[in-house]
Amino acid sequence: MKLTHINENGDAHMVDVGEKDITRREAQAQAVVTMQPETLRMILSDRTKKGDVLGCARIAGIMAAKRTAELIPMCHAIPIDNVTVDIEPQNDTQLRIVVTARCTWKTGIEMEALTAASTAALTIYDMCKAVDRGMHIDEIYLLHKSGGKSGEFRREEALPGSPIR
Amino acid sequence: MKLTHINENGDAHMVDVGEKDITRREAQAQAVVTMQPETLRMILSDRTKKGDVLGCARIAGIMAAKRTAELIPMCHAIPIDNVTVDIEPQNDTQLRIVVTARCTWKTGIEMEALTAASTAALTIYDMCKAVDRGMHIDEIYLLHKSGGKSGEFRREEALPGSPIR
Amino acid sequence: MKLTHINENGDAHMVDVGEKDITRREAQAQAVVTMQPETLRMILSDRTKKGDVLGCARIAGIMAAKRTAELIPMCHAIPIDNVTVDIEPQNDTQLRIVVTARCTWKTGIEMEALTAASTAALTIYDMCKAVDRGMHIDEIYLLHKSGGKSGEFRREEALPGSPIR
Amino acid sequence: MKLTHINENGDAHMVDVGEKDITRREAQAQAVVTMQPETLRMILSDRTKKGDVLGCARIAGIMAAKRTAELIPMCHAIPIDNVTVDIEPQNDTQLRIVVTARCTWKTGIEMEALTAASTAALTIYDMCKAVDRGMHIDEIYLLHKSGGKSGEFRREEALPGSPIR
Amino acid sequence: MKLTHINENGDAHMVDVGEKDITRREAQAQAVVTMQPETLRMILSDRTKKGDVLGCARIAGIMAAKRTAELIPMCHAIPIDNVTVDIEPQNDTQLRIVVTARCTWKTGIEMEALTAASTAALTIYDMCKAVDRGMHIDEIYLLHKSGGKSGEFRREEALPGSPIR
Amino acid sequence: MKLTHINENGDAHMVDVGEKDITRREAQAQAVVTMQPETLRMILSDRTKKGDVLGCARIAGIMAAKRTAELIPMCHAIPIDNVTVDIEPQNDTQLRIVVTARCTWKTGIEMEALTAASTAALTIYDMCKAVDRGMHIDEIYLLHKSGGKSGEFRREEALPGSPIR
Repeated sequence: MKLTHINENGDAHMVDVGEKDITRREAQAQAVVTMQPETLRMILSDRTKKGDVLGCARIAGIMAAKRTAELIPMCHAIPIDNVTVDIEPQNDTQLRIVVTARCTWKTGIEMEALTAASTAALTIYDMCKAVDRGMHIDEIYLLHKSGGKSGEFRREEALPGSPIR
Repeated sequence: MKLTHINENGDAHMVDVGEKDITRREAQAQAVVTMQPETLRMILSDRTKKGDVLGCARIAGIMAAKRTAELIPMCHAIPIDNVTVDIEPQNDTQLRIVVTARCTWKTGIEMEALTAASTAALTIYDMCKAVDRGMHIDEIYLLHKSGGKSGEFRREEALPGSPIR
Repeated sequence: MKLTHINENGDAHMVDVGEKDITRREAQAQAVVTMQPETLRMILSDRTKKGDVLGCARIAGIMAAKRTAELIPMCHAIPIDNVTVDIEPQNDTQLRIVVTARCTWKTGIEMEALTAASTAALTIYDMCKAVDRGMHIDEIYLLHKSGGKSGEFRREEALPGSPIR
Repeated sequence: MKLTHINENGDAHMVDVGEKDITRREAQAQAVVTMQPETLRMILSDRTKKGDVLGCARIAGIMAAKRTAELIPMCHAIPIDNVTVDIEPQNDTQLRIVVTARCTWKTGIEMEALTAASTAALTIYDMCKAVDRGMHIDEIYLLHKSGGKSGEFRREEALPGSPIR
Repeated sequence: MKLTHINENGDAHMVDVGEKDITRREAQAQAVVTMQPETLRMILSDRTKKGDVLGCARIAGIMAAKRTAELIPMCHAIPIDNVTVDIEPQNDTQLRIVVTARCTWKTGIEMEALTAASTAALTIYDMCKAVDRGMHIDEIYLLHKSGGKSGEFRREEALPGSPIR
Repeated sequence: MKLTHINENGDAHMVDVGEKDITRREAQAQAVVTMQPETLRMILSDRTKKGDVLGCARIAGIMAAKRTAELIPMCHAIPIDNVTVDIEPQNDTQLRIVVTARCTWKTGIEMEALTAASTAALTIYDMCKAVDRGMHIDEIYLLHKSGGKSGEFRREEALPGSPIR
């Protein structure tokens, strides 16, 4: 087992995807934002009106997905088929962001889904930080991927040290 | 109490920082990446040689800090004085990323610190995902901020639902 | 009278703003999107629910303002104090976008306001083009500016050939 | 009839283009910049020499086309085959910009053509604004598109409220 | 013989690549950075420890390759298969950067290789300039390209005025 | 003597410029492009007409200067006062690019001048490569800088191994 992004000299490099098949690929990733109950009430009551915190977070996530390869050094730019960002309250202190991204290309779209989830979460933090600086973001991970040579992955159980309940 | 990024019509907007004082400001934020023990051993043994996973993550974090305002819709572009990204193992399954960012400007630098921490964590995920797709990122939060009208913030205790131990 | 962005050799260049005073500056610009009445009804009924066409256009305008200097070759990057994007129906076929942008800097913020108005208009076009390819965008101009050596400008009357009513 | 960029929940999303055919597509869009006769004379006399206002606007348009998906939130990044930007005087107060863009891909290239036309127009404004702040930009619309499932579109006549003569 | 990026009117334009075949293409380019012997010793001794000057330059080169089409006005954005950046000392005052880039697309990848080499060289300059402002960068050229209609190119001998030894 | 961008742990970092004085700073840098005499004749005859190769290179240089901090990992984003790019033939095979950049800020503007010179040179290569793949770029260095604590630098003589005549 070796790290594919480190070559024989120990240097970071981009993996060559030239020989890989173009297949339909999908990835689903999530993030959870935890806040004070009052903060979540403000976001959701706003949502009833115009939804700008969650609407803004969704748009930020979609736009970040398109710029993943600019942010993650060894990541290939890939043509995205689509991205959806869903945000739902989990309980009275948590919002869960679920991103689904698809491409038809030579390499997977996990990093785009994770980057979108993370950026949507940071956007919620930014828009609410003046009222709740203690918010935190957790449980950013891949839920599912399909397509490509490495095949299907579906998250089953938590790793050691995981905050997943 | 109201959300500063939502105006009287419920629309997202950028807060006007024109009247704010230019002061020295600092923010410190963190993220934790959890992985299999074998994955962490590979990263650290590589580090002994040339450190490219952690070196790459540090550089990705610094570069992302400079692009925060492009990613977070309502965030102001600010001139950054400096950013440092420190990454240390916490135990045999976790790496902790601590980012310190400083500016001398009209608005704070929290989002830059959080964006750097989150992007450094995503870069570690990207470089190791071929060997460990179950990695997860948690505990992204502000550790400390100083400067500006809202004064000093230092994280003391966990919020409800927090995975912080 | 000469073009300030063309030097003595006829070459495009950036004007030197090094000696200019740092003052509070404001610019207000607009754009008008014309469409079929049915298209406007769909946007506005959607707005009653969650406002995503107009919300998305507002966010796109704000984000584009921050990237003006990347798009307009001879434009200086300036630290923006704030940007607001207001979008209102004018009649049963037109939406009017009004952008107000402010900075405290050595050069004006007109281009940011105009770029935001134009990008918000293009976003409305993009989101509705599948139902109305004949939409058009007009009346992109500066409404008002203040601050800086060239002083105040307020649009009074239409130029020859202007579609302004 | 419904807006394709708004999903069943009323949220903005990117349309999935994964199943669409890869075909040769073309779009042609325009913009008109209106100014004082003296301003147009200065631009054109400069053109006789080195053409930097129009040359700069053409280059800005081409470069903006390549960044359309970064600016327009729900727009897919597409590999552009080529872009041409033609700028010609229409009379003694107006310049007309016509952009032709082509791709061989799953989705159309209208937004790239419109973004190029709009950015070229804004660049002309920027380079001449010191001598003519009253310039305005109008008649940004699609002239023609071909390729793809929605087939050919050719603009025939003006919509209600249109400034097209 | 004519310049392909200048059309019949003398205007810069993007060449239309719509009819070109998708083939595997490779380009290799280089740059040489010359410095004081003491500067090179510091870089290399650092390398023995953690390699951050060269590691940072390699990452900067790879990331710049992905953004070539944003920097070079008439360059097409292409999906990169991979990029590698190798940096080796040539003697006691020179580092040589060799970049190999590959794509499977309609147009070549030379500009990506050259942009990566040039950006890696500038990064070395940036990180060492405080101790050696006289450093210079030379011998940026294409070493080899293959694939596409123009076929194979391999650099054989120096042109007039060339500093190549 | 130590490398300022490498901290006590050997990690790359951004230097803290928070305590530095805001002063007027200038940097001048150059690059030389060598080509076949026939290539240079084509560029210059084109220039007599509309100057698009050199005009395009000048604009690319100015736009690249504004994005230096996105390309060079440890470089601070600085507000640029102005950039000029002059390109003149040196003899029958060489074009010399001289960039002058100015800012009024806490850190110098050398990297912006060097990045502009390098990008202008790459743009000339790109636009002429179809007729002359053997072109090369050399002699990228700082000519002069002033302002800031490190004071004035003026290039006097060549370093060992330098191609400077």
